[in-house]
Amino acid sequence: MDDSGLWLIGLGPGDLNQMSISALSAAKAANYRFLEGYTALLPPNELGNLEEVVGPWELRMRSSVEQPEELLDLAQNHRVALLVVGDPLQATTHVDLQLRCAQRQIPCHIEHGISITTIVTGAVGLQSYRFGRQCTFAYPYGDYLPTSPLEIILENKERGLHTLALLDLDPTGMGEGDQQPMTPKVAVEVLRKMAQKLEVDVEEWTLVLCSDMGTDDANVNVGSAQQISEVTGGRIHCLLIPAELHDVEDAALARW
Amino acid sequence: MDDSGLWLIGLGPGDLNQMSISALSAAKAANYRFLEGYTALLPPNELGNLEEVVGPWELRMRSSVEQPEELLDLAQNHRVALLVVGDPLQATTHVDLQLRCAQRQIPCHIEHGISITTIVTGAVGLQSYRFGRQCTFAYPYGDYLPTSPLEIILENKERGLHTLALLDLDPTGMGEGDQQPMTPKVAVEVLRKMAQKLEVDVEEWTLVLCSDMGTDDANVNVGSAQQISEVTGGRIHCLLIPAELHDVEDAALARW
Repeated sequence: MDDSGLWLIGLGPGDLNQMSISALSAAKAANYRFLEGYTALLPPNELGNLEEVVGPWELRMRSSVEQPEELLDLAQNHRVALLVVGDPLQATTHVDLQLRCAQRQIPCHIEHGISITTIVTGAVGLQSYRFGRQCTFAYPYGDYLPTSPLEIILENKERGLHTLALLDLDPTGMGEGDQQPMTPKVAVEVLRKMAQKLEVDVEEWTLVLCSDMGTDDANVNVGSAQQISEVTGGRIHCLLIPAELHDVEDAALARW
Repeated sequence: MDDSGLWLIGLGPGDLNQMSISALSAAKAANYRFLEGYTALLPPNELGNLEEVVGPWELRMRSSVEQPEELLDLAQNHRVALLVVGDPLQATTHVDLQLRCAQRQIPCHIEHGISITTIVTGAVGLQSYRFGRQCTFAYPYGDYLPTSPLEIILENKERGLHTLALLDLDPTGMGEGDQQPMTPKVAVEVLRKMAQKLEVDVEEWTLVLCSDMGTDDANVNVGSAQQISEVTGGRIHCLLIPAELHDVEDAALARW
């Protein structure tokens, strides 16, 4: 392994045993390890295991990843690992890091990870090739509530495609403070508010709530908006909004 | 680990070091190992390493996976691993295996893997949330050539979304014989034939050819249909058809 550079290392979806063999070895070999703490979160128990698995690490939030001078200065002469939950290149920020490394002629290595987008499109039983564009439900700020996520869902549905809706982690929108993954209750509130603005009835829709996917606590709930809003367990969630179901999909969803 | 059941184990995209730690351990612990050989392929050198990494294995093609009595009978009393390149639940067939296990009350475990869909949507530098529905270019049979892949690409483009086009591995369409991954030349022929039928001009489009992603030989080529059709290196390819590019994406693609 070279003596300097930036390693963008995917930790996988939550359980550190889902790191790849080569990601683990790159993380261990680093001189400095930073956990990127705002595009995704590790479960608390795995956060506790991280030092034992890869070695000492520090947390870095949005500002030090988007203005990465500290990381890049270090990477000029040392092996620096930025640990990212999921796959490190699913967030635009990390692509930007690659480009900045290229500008400064710092070697930038990628260790891919298992991504939530792979897990939910496959594991629930919906067919992965039937997913349209994904969207994200952001926390509402006062009266401001964009309807673009529901517009994406409606466009997908019209084309017979399922939608993956990721749920916001950060009520402040700044990527700096404590992260609070959006609960099913708030997610359904956001969906209903968008539906009201666009005058769409979502109450009869079937929703699939995926909770803590890729960990031992993984759980799937299928139900109406009202039923999903009442789910209280789980830590990190995302929502699938299926289009009309094919037969195998119907049978696969009936398991949950 | 339990004494019997079926383990669907993701090998990742080609380099066995990209298996997850827990996938490796499940594969090693199995009493019987079968490599699913028709939805994706390992590079020849990794195929040679497989026994050393996980233990002895046998190849199984489409019929024994879609009519899985042999697998399920064995799994009733033994630990049976079905090794799948990429993520084991991205193909409908494997979801069907889960359902059959449930019917026969055979425990079915999933070990997720890094999927080509994660790698290409992130690694190339296009934003993963801007991808629409994916499609697959099948080998043409005589005069028969469905235009649905190009229709998906056109719909995506109209909505400002990129498309991932997977390329067929199997000229016979049966999933049984020797697999022959579609070359860039044939892929562009298929694209042009579809374009002719739909009266669309694709010659000015920018295409992104991703070759052997997730292996040491990974390579990306950006160019026109004509330029891409002339690429001769590489083993397994897929195509990205970008919509209009954002700034970071433009910079990211300019690297290749």
